[in-house]
Amino acid sequence: MRIDAYATPANLMDRDLKGRTVIVIDVLRATSTIITALENGAREVIPVAEVEEAVRMSRHLGHNNVHLCGERANAPIPGFALSNSPREYTRVVVENYVLVMTTTNGTRAVLHAREAGTMIMGGLLNARAVARTAVEQGKDVVILCAGTDGRYSLDDVLCAGALIDRIAQKCSDAQLDDLSRTARVVYQHAHGDLLGALKGSRHFDALMQSGYADDVRFCLREDVMNAVPLYKDGSIRNYE
Amino acid sequence: MRIDAYATPANLMDRDLKGRTVIVIDVLRATSTIITALENGAREVIPVAEVEEAVRMSRHLGHNNVHLCGERANAPIPGFALSNSPREYTRVVVENYVLVMTTTNGTRAVLHAREAGTMIMGGLLNARAVARTAVEQGKDVVILCAGTDGRYSLDDVLCAGALIDRIAQKCSDAQLDDLSRTARVVYQHAHGDLLGALKGSRHFDALMQSGYADDVRFCLREDVMNAVPLYKDGSIRNYE
Repeated sequence: MRIDAYATPANLMDRDLKGRTVIVIDVLRATSTIITALENGAREVIPVAEVEEAVRMSRHLGHNNVHLCGERANAPIPGFALSNSPREYTRVVVENYVLVMTTTNGTRAVLHAREAGTMIMGGLLNARAVARTAVEQGKDVVILCAGTDGRYSLDDVLCAGALIDRIAQKCSDAQLDDLSRTARVVYQHAHGDLLGALKGSRHFDALMQSGYADDVRFCLREDVMNAVPLYKDGSIRNYE
Repeated sequence: MRIDAYATPANLMDRDLKGRTVIVIDVLRATSTIITALENGAREVIPVAEVEEAVRMSRHLGHNNVHLCGERANAPIPGFALSNSPREYTRVVVENYVLVMTTTNGTRAVLHAREAGTMIMGGLLNARAVARTAVEQGKDVVILCAGTDGRYSLDDVLCAGALIDRIAQKCSDAQLDDLSRTARVVYQHAHGDLLGALKGSRHFDALMQSGYADDVRFCLREDVMNAVPLYKDGSIRNYE
């Protein structure tokens, strides 16, 4: 099994995705939020690129059991029920709801990877579960980091390393490409102090300085959820 | 002082280079070859993108004391005096010569970065010297890895880490971007066994399997040369 990692969706070609299992990562915070939503019983998450599109989609679905969700520049969107804070997605708020979601980097990465054979979403929260699912698929794996504003983002690469480490432990013949090797080294070097390893990195610092420290701590917990978000035909549901 | 790193020239904008000290790295083997050539007394290296351009340039310069140099797909170019093996660039061969050079990734990265305030070339061979030069410039630093065929290449990122580690030691207020942090971790994690750290990586393995193991070992030596190649107006000479 080959594992190829990409630091951003740029330069990724559709042919790199065909027949592969693609794992999308935007650990701070979009994929962590989607994992939490499905873990807490949300029926589905519909990712859209733009705010206006989200509003149109929610009107089209009708107002019963639909929440508009997302962020722009890390901040809540006026009129939207939920922001990109995973701690808002409690069972009482999301169970049996359809969530229409737009985020700056995360949902865009998802939409970029629609040509994948199988597309699932990874975070630290569900690292073990997503690694197990990827190995079960038996296909080559592409790890697609959302990045931050088109650039390499250490938080996503660290999370990629956590997934790659778990996949490689299950699958001794895994062939890691250069960025996958790097990600695994970065993760192993963090020695269980992921928060310390991220100090000084751009997106992490921006969130900490904007008052999102509790969200960051929430997202950096490893293997505490079993939900594996699976994208299919425009919708994200729990893989089972 | 800020240090920003790029894994490939793609996505790098001219505005990211203006007024900065740009350090170009193609450690296996183009920048290591250029460092060796200048260390051994070559007068200048003229980087060109294409083979035909190299031939035209050498005709234009006349045949006295000019060598055509470079590679395509790691292999020597028919009719060229020197390949991309730094071990060919001995004093007896290159002293006082002008070298017209074209390589797959390295010289293209140099040509990509012509808008830089100051552009120098880094390798492991001259890591300490190039770090000293970068700090002396007193400007923000961009580390531009050539990459391999447009993709992230671990050998270049490891070398970037060696330079960043030396710069950060001299300059305690250096602000490292996310990829610079990663590169430094990868370098420190290698614990002096750079060859071991690169085993399994794509470009390294390709060179080892094609019979270039002696070149690789030559290029992975740290701090054994003082030449700092400086690009200016189409020519690379030793910085002094």
